[in-house]
Parts: sequence; C-alpha cells; structure tokens
Amino acid sequence: MSNVHWIAADWGTTNLRLWAMRGADVVHHRSSSQGMGGLVPAEFAPVLARETADWREGDWAAAPVVACGMVGSRQGWTEAPYATAPTQAGTPLAQVAGANVWIACGVKQIDPADVMRGEETQIAGLLAARPDFDGVICLPGTHTKWVRVSAGEICSFQSFMTGEIFALLADHSVLRHSVQAATFDMAAFDAAVQDALAQPHRAYGRLFQLRAGALVGELPPEVARATLSGLLIGWELAGAKPYWLGQEVALLGSPSLSMLYGRALQAQGVLVSEADVQAATLAGLHRAWKIIGGAA
Amino acid sequence: MSNVHWIAADWGTTNLRLWAMRGADVVHHRSSSQGMGGLVPAEFAPVLARETADWREGDWAAAPVVACGMVGSRQGWTEAPYATAPTQAGTPLAQVAGANVWIACGVKQIDPADVMRGEETQIAGLLAARPDFDGVICLPGTHTKWVRVSAGEICSFQSFMTGEIFALLADHSVLRHSVQAATFDMAAFDAAVQDALAQPHRAYGRLFQLRAGALVGELPPEVARATLSGLLIGWELAGAKPYWLGQEVALLGSPSLSMLYGRALQAQGVLVSEADVQAATLAGLHRAWKIIGGAA
Repeated sequence: MSNVHWIAADWGTTNLRLWAMRGADVVHHRSSSQGMGGLVPAEFAPVLARETADWREGDWAAAPVVACGMVGSRQGWTEAPYATAPTQAGTPLAQVAGANVWIACGVKQIDPADVMRGEETQIAGLLAARPDFDGVICLPGTHTKWVRVSAGEICSFQSFMTGEIFALLADHSVLRHSVQAATFDMAAFDAAVQDALAQPHRAYGRLFQLRAGALVGELPPEVARATLSGLLIGWELAGAKPYWLGQEVALLGSPSLSMLYGRALQAQGVLVSEADVQAATLAGLHRAWKIIGGAA
Repeated sequence: MSNVHWIAADWGTTNLRLWAMRGADVVHHRSSSQGMGGLVPAEFAPVLARETADWREGDWAAAPVVACGMVGSRQGWTEAPYATAPTQAGTPLAQVAGANVWIACGVKQIDPADVMRGEETQIAGLLAARPDFDGVICLPGTHTKWVRVSAGEICSFQSFMTGEIFALLADHSVLRHSVQAATFDMAAFDAAVQDALAQPHRAYGRLFQLRAGALVGELPPEVARATLSGLLIGWELAGAKPYWLGQEVALLGSPSLSMLYGRALQAQGVLVSEADVQAATLAGLHRAWKIIGGAA
C-alpha cells in the first residue's frame, strides 16, 4: 500500500472540499455543498465514498482520508474530542471506527469558554510555513476567531459571531429591505468601524437607523450595507482589543473578509499580514497526515 | 347613522386585533394572526370584512374603522404618511380610498433617522390618561422605542432592534442549541445587564460564549437565555442612556418585557412606571376616532 497518496477533506457546516494528494501536492480537487449541517451521521460515509469514487483506483484505492472541520463535532460523523488550550497547534486526530478516515480534534478553552473546529488545522498549517510565528492570528468568518500563538502553541482565543450576525441582519431582519446592494461603499465602512470602535455603546442604536434612513431619507443600500458591516466589525475590534493592540496580526480567511478586517486594523495602526486560507488548510491537513504515518 | 359605534383595529405586522366599540366601551373583541406581513394590498379589505362580518348588523352596520400599525405602511393597505417629530402625539389619520376606514399616521424623525408606526397611537392613549406627562416613554418590543414626551408632543425618539435581534439569535443562530429553556434565570439576567451596561464593548464577545459554555462546560439553557436577554437589554440601555438618565420612564409594552426593562432600569436607580399597552392602544384609537367625528 502506498504511503504517499492520501485524500484531504475540509468538511465544514456548509461545504465539503476534497483534494486527492500525493505527498504535499494536489493532484485532483473538488467541492460540493454537502456540508455537515445537512447530513445525519449515517450519511457521511456514503457521501465521502460517492464524492471520491472516481479517485479510488490505483494509488488512491485504499488511501487514508484526513479531515478537519465540523465533521468532527458531536452532530457530525465521529466526535473528535477537543484538545484544551493552551495546546500545541498540531492537535491529535480521532479515527472513524472501522474506516481509514481521520478527523482533526478541535480546541476548547475552559475560561472564558470557547471552541474552535477547523481553525486549529489552518493555524497548524500557517505555523508549518512560519514556525517562529509569535503573535495573533485572526480568522474572519461566520464565527471569527482571535488566537494568541506563541512557541507553536495555541495559547488563548476568543470567537465573535460577526459573520453570522451580519448574515442574520442583512438577510432576515427588517434591515434586509435596506441593505441589498451589489456594491459596497468603502468610505461608509471605514467611518462605521471608527464610530463603533470609539463608541461601541452608541453603535447598537445605529442599526435601526439603517432601515429608517432608507424610509425617511435616501440612504443608499450600498452605504447601509457597508455601514452594517463596519458597525459589526468595529464592535468586534472594540471587544477584541486585548488581542490586537500592539501586536502583529496575521489574517487567515477569505480574501474579501480579510481585506475588510485588514483595512479596519490598519486604520488603528496595526501591522497586518494576510495568508492564503486554503493553502493553510492543506498544509495543516498535510501535517496531520504525517502524524498518522504519511511519508512526505 | 349612529356616531357612537365604531370599530378599533390594531393591525400590526403579525397580528390583527379588533374591537367593536360603543364610545369608549369595548363590546366585542377578537384577534387573528392575519397581520400585515402576510397580506398583499388587495387582501386587507376582504380580511377586515370577514373578521368583522358578525358585528356588521344594527348599530355597527356602517360604523367606521379606526386602525393603527403597519397596516398604514408602504407595504400595507394604504400608506398613511408620517408626521414629522416634534409633533403632537395625536397624529393625523389617512382615509382608505372609498372605504369608511381610517389609519393613524406614523411619526418619522429626520436626524437621526427614525420611524414609528403604531407606537404614536399608544403614546397618544397614555397621554389621554396622563395629559401632563413629561418624561420618557419606553415601548419595549421587536423594535423598542425610547420617546421623549413633553407638553403633549413627541419630541424625539430612538429605536433599538433588541427584540428582533434576540429572536434571531435565540431561534436562528448557533446559539439556538444553547438557549432553549422554559424558565429564565433572573440573577443571570441582572448580571448580564450590569456587565453590558458597564462594558458594552465586551458584551459582543460574550455572545459566542453562550454556545461554548454549553459545549465545554455545563452552562444551563435557562442561564444562557437570560444572559442573552440581559446582554442585549444592557447594551440597549448603554446606548439609550441619554433618554433615561435622570428621567422618569413610563414603560408601555407586554407585561413580561416591561418587567425585564423595568428591572434593568430600577437597578440603575431610574423611577419607572408601567402602563397597560392594550388600554393605551384603545385609548389612542378612541382619541383618533373623535378626530374623525366620533361623539363620545
């Protein structure tokens, strides 16, 4: 049996991303919307078999699968128990019973209570490229994480619900009538970040104004949408200040979100770098694969 | 034609409440879930006819209908244009074309932009009972309103999305797994109000902890639910401080919500009174009915 062929899986709540790997090299790649959120436990094995069926010949016939993300949650395929922070960034793996499938353990923090699942693998991947990184990693997303990393360890972290709250307000609240726009007013975003960061107690009362401004004035939707985004990110920065103040921050998220966070942080004088999140995920899964005996 | 018989309607987004009135006295009452949110403009007339059909004999056969609420919005039956604050609390009425139906105009504020629709009638009703009221009225609800009232005028106001945000987070976000509880931990509510009011910038970061606390610890759902409510109300109080600080506040909302706001305000040393919101709505509609010629 080959020990340089394997399959990498980033199996989150909404998507499943798969790569057929030879060592650290990607040979095939595909994505599907069969995320953990839409599956019951008995469906994971057949979904994985179907999605990788055309790769399962020759060298990949019996290749192991190394996965990260919500597939390892209690509602997922097999619960991969949390490591407890502070902990080494390369977390342990849990094997799916009776299958050549391995899932990266998430990380929990006891006090203040917090959890991550998937981000630990991205962090391990970033550290594979920058083993001496000492500072803060910000992973913008549905639940943005701020993570202190030092000496290869995840020291402490905090999650903010900014991505999810933005989606709920923009698509499901009364604001949905006022923030549908294909463009984004960057000056309005900058101003809202600044306001919310300076006066977080006042920002809360500005939310309804995004609706009222369209009703009684002519607040353009691209301004309202950018203001909503800026208020929430500014709020988050106000709460996350102990993480970023005086630190170098590495952003690890989608380019569009990382751009917004980077812009907001740079306006506060923070030194920011951006890393490719997919490359970090693959590097983290590669590191995990070596733990279970991968050879390259 | 009798001029002491009329029909009062509180026609909001989610409910329609109707009263057959003789002067200021309620003779019949019914409620339905046929709120404005589920109706297209052509449906309002038939819904009203059907819901009042068994009242439409004798004295109420041709009685006028006086309505307030979202029925008068642009998406409602007939747009009842906003009065502009500052304005007398008894706003004008708009007649539905070709019908003996009158809708109370809402109130708008230009800067900061804000709107109310329905609350103006409740405020007018409260002032009918307390004509010398000078202070602040807080109307807790989906979009809680804080209103400065003096000399019978709505002087200025601000809306907060607390009710809607609570519902979105409790029922549609990741927190839904952690806050489903039939009971409510009042001590947790009090503590969360206090925390959010003292440090609104930190409250935002506590939201995800309500989920994480259930995953890594044993945060009981009744504590998580009360904490979520307290964080949001505390945040609102931080933003609404210019309204309540040093003022007497009259609460005009459902008893359960008014109780929470009252508790939070009293902890800040604010003098609070509570008024019956249904009585205020009826009194406000009665006042409006007199404007269109009602005789008692």
